Amino acid sequence: MGVVTLTSDFGTVDGYAGAMKGVILSRAPDATVVDITHDIPRHDIAAGAFALANAAPLFPPGTIHVAVVDPGVGSSRAAVIAQSGGQLFIAPDNGLLQLVAPEPTSVYAISAAEFCLREQSTTFHGRDIFAAAAGRLASGANAAEAGPAIELSGRLTGVSDESASGDDSAAYVVHVDAFGNLITDLPAVALPSKPCVTIAGRRIERLATTYQSVEVGELLAYIGSGDTLEIAVREGSAADVLGISRGAIVNVSATPVRADD
Amino acid sequence: MGVVTLTSDFGTVDGYAGAMKGVILSRAPDATVVDITHDIPRHDIAAGAFALANAAPLFPPGTIHVAVVDPGVGSSRAAVIAQSGGQLFIAPDNGLLQLVAPEPTSVYAISAAEFCLREQSTTFHGRDIFAAAAGRLASGANAAEAGPAIELSGRLTGVSDESASGDDSAAYVVHVDAFGNLITDLPAVALPSKPCVTIAGRRIERLATTYQSVEVGELLAYIGSGDTLEIAVREGSAADVLGISRGAIVNVSATPVRADD
Amino acid sequence: MGVVTLTSDFGTVDGYAGAMKGVILSRAPDATVVDITHDIPRHDIAAGAFALANAAPLFPPGTIHVAVVDPGVGSSRAAVIAQSGGQLFIAPDNGLLQLVAPEPTSVYAISAAEFCLREQSTTFHGRDIFAAAAGRLASGANAAEAGPAIELSGRLTGVSDESASGDDSAAYVVHVDAFGNLITDLPAVALPSKPCVTIAGRRIERLATTYQSVEVGELLAYIGSGDTLEIAVREGSAADVLGISRGAIVNVSATPVRADD
Repeated sequence: MGVVTLTSDFGTVDGYAGAMKGVILSRAPDATVVDITHDIPRHDIAAGAFALANAAPLFPPGTIHVAVVDPGVGSSRAAVIAQSGGQLFIAPDNGLLQLVAPEPTSVYAISAAEFCLREQSTTFHGRDIFAAAAGRLASGANAAEAGPAIELSGRLTGVSDESASGDDSAAYVVHVDAFGNLITDLPAVALPSKPCVTIAGRRIERLATTYQSVEVGELLAYIGSGDTLEIAVREGSAADVLGISRGAIVNVSATPVRADD
Repeated sequence: MGVVTLTSDFGTVDGYAGAMKGVILSRAPDATVVDITHDIPRHDIAAGAFALANAAPLFPPGTIHVAVVDPGVGSSRAAVIAQSGGQLFIAPDNGLLQLVAPEPTSVYAISAAEFCLREQSTTFHGRDIFAAAAGRLASGANAAEAGPAIELSGRLTGVSDESASGDDSAAYVVHVDAFGNLITDLPAVALPSKPCVTIAGRRIERLATTYQSVEVGELLAYIGSGDTLEIAVREGSAADVLGISRGAIVNVSATPVRADD
Repeated sequence: MGVVTLTSDFGTVDGYAGAMKGVILSRAPDATVVDITHDIPRHDIAAGAFALANAAPLFPPGTIHVAVVDPGVGSSRAAVIAQSGGQLFIAPDNGLLQLVAPEPTSVYAISAAEFCLREQSTTFHGRDIFAAAAGRLASGANAAEAGPAIELSGRLTGVSDESASGDDSAAYVVHVDAFGNLITDLPAVALPSKPCVTIAGRRIERLATTYQSVEVGELLAYIGSGDTLEIAVREGSAADVLGISRGAIVNVSATPVRADD
C-alpha cells in the first residue's frame, strides 16, 4: 500500500488535480494519495521545487512523489522518473527536481505505453503521463520499465546553483513563504559564529533563537526549519516590510570584535 | 474499501468540508476520502458541474462522488443518488450532475432515515444528508434503499444544452479554467478539417498541437484535454487578454480554399 | 488504522503542511491523514478553534486531531495532547482547543523524546512536535506516555467566554464564515419563543426556517447548523451588507405582544 503525493500549479477548482487522483486510484486502488499542494503559482518551477524539497524528504521510503509545474507541456522536455533517497519522483525534466533530488541514483524517461494513458492530450500530461506513471509504479511496476535511462538536464533559472558559504559571503533568498518569511540558501553550518546579517540596507546584529526573541513587528534572523538562514518579522511579513522577493541578496559577515570587548 | 470524492463550494476554512469527511468516516471507517475541490465559486453550479465532469470519470468503477453546490438548500429540490457509468453520484437535483451524468441509469431521491443524520439542519445538507448518504453507501448499502426512483429535473442555466457541430457553427465557452484557458463545448470530431476560429474579433487561422506552437503571449486554438476546442494564450490568460467569460460565443468555420492553393 | 486530521494556518503552497503529513505517515504508515483545513487566517487562533469545533466532533471515536495555529511557537507555551469526547487533540496550549474541548478528560504536556523528532527547530513545531506526536499516537502509543499531566491554561481572547442567554440578552458573533454568514454563540434553546433580532441597527422580526424564506438579497436570522443563532443574506454576504466582523454584538429580545394581537 504505497503513498503517492501530488504537487502542482493546477489549483483544485477545475478538477484537473482531481482527474490525476482518479487516474492513480484507477491503476492502484490501494494507494494512499496525499496532497502536498496544488497552489504553486502558475508556471513557477522554483516555487514547486522548494515545496517539494520542503515536504518530500519527510515521507516514508518508497513514497512516490508526482510533481507537475510544466510550462513546457507538449514540448520536447522529457517526462522522468528519478530515484533519490529511497523515494521516487515523477516530473517534467525542467528543474523541478533540482532541490529535492540534486544527485538522483537513476533517472528514466517515461516512454513505455503502460506508463501512460492510452490516449494522450498534448496539454495535460499531469493526467495522461505523470499520474498514469504513478499509478503504474504504485501498483508494483519497476521504474526501469518506464523507458531508457537518461540524465536530468533541466535547470532552475534565477536561483543560485551553489550555496554561498563562509564569512563576508552573499546568500540568496531562495523562497518567500506564505508568512512573508525569507528563506535563504545559506546553511547553518556555513554561518560565522557571530553573524551580522544585512538585507535591503537593514542590519541584524545577531541570530535570534525564537520569534519571541524580538518584539512584535521587529525584524529577526534565525536558523529556519530547513536548517538555513531565514529572515522574518515577528507576526508580520519580512517580504512586505523589506520590499524583498526571491533572488534578493543577503550579506552575512562576522561581527567585528570591538576594542572594548 | 470504497473511494468517496468531494466537490463543493464550501472552501475549507470554516470546517464545513471537514465535517463532511467526519460524517463519511464515522459511517464508513475504511473509505478513502478524496478531495476533488472545495473551491468552486460560491453557488456556481455550472462550475461545479464542469469540475465534476472533468475529474469523476477517471476514478475507478464503484466510486461514490459527493457534490454540493446548493444555493437551494432547504428548498424543495430533491437530494439524489444517481448511477451512471458504473459510479454513484450524490448531489442536489439542480443541474450539478448534468455534464457528468447526462443519462443516468437510475436516480433515487434520498429520503430513508438511515441515509441522513438523525438531526438535520435546514442549511447544511452537505453534512446532514449528502455526506451521510455517502457514508451509508460506502458501508455497503444499496442506492435503491435510499428512496423512491425519480427523474433528474434540475438543469444548468446559462450553458448551452446541445453541442454545436459542423461547419460555420457557433461553439460556447462552457468554462474558464484557473489558467484563463477557454474551454468550449465543440467536440474535436465536429471540427472542420481546416478550422478557422473567431473569438472576440480575433481570428485564429489554424489549430495548434502544443502551447509551444506559438510564441509566449500569443493566442492559440487547440484540442484540449477534454477533447473539445480550447483557446489559450501561451503562458498567459486568454480570458484576460480577450476579456471573455463563460457563455461567450466562438465562431468556427472551414478555412476557405484559396485560389492559389 | 487510525484517522489523523490536520488544521493549520500554514496554507499548502510552501510544503509545510505536506511535511507534517510526511512525518505522520513515516511514523504511522497505515494512518488515514485527512485535511480539515490549512487556510485558517495567519495566527487567527479563534478562527482555528471554530473550524476545529465545527468539524472534529463528527469524526469517529479515537480520531487524532492535530491543530496548529501557533504565533507563540518557540515560546514557553506548552504543546499538549488533550483527551475529550473519546478523541485526541494535539495543539499548542493557546486557546485553540477551547471550543472543541472545553472540559478535557485529561491533558498531557508533550515532552517525551519519542513524541518529537530527534532534531527540533524553534519555528516549526507543527512538523517537529505536533505531527511527530500524532504519528506516535497513531502507531499505538498512549497519550499518558507523552509527558506530565497538566491543565490547559491558554484562552481565546476577543471571544465571549460565556454564552449569552435568555431574553433581552446580547449574543456575540463568534465567527464569520466564507459565505459571509454570521454565526453567534446564542444556543437555540436560549432563544425566546418569538425572538426579535437586532444587529447593526437592523431588526429581524422572526426566525426563518430556510434561506428560501426570504427573497434573494434579504437578511434572515435562523438556527444554524451548529444549533446557534445565525444571520445571513440569501445568496449574499451578511458580513458585507452589515459591515460586521467577529465580536459584533447581536441583541435578541422577545417580540412584544401587541395590543391588537
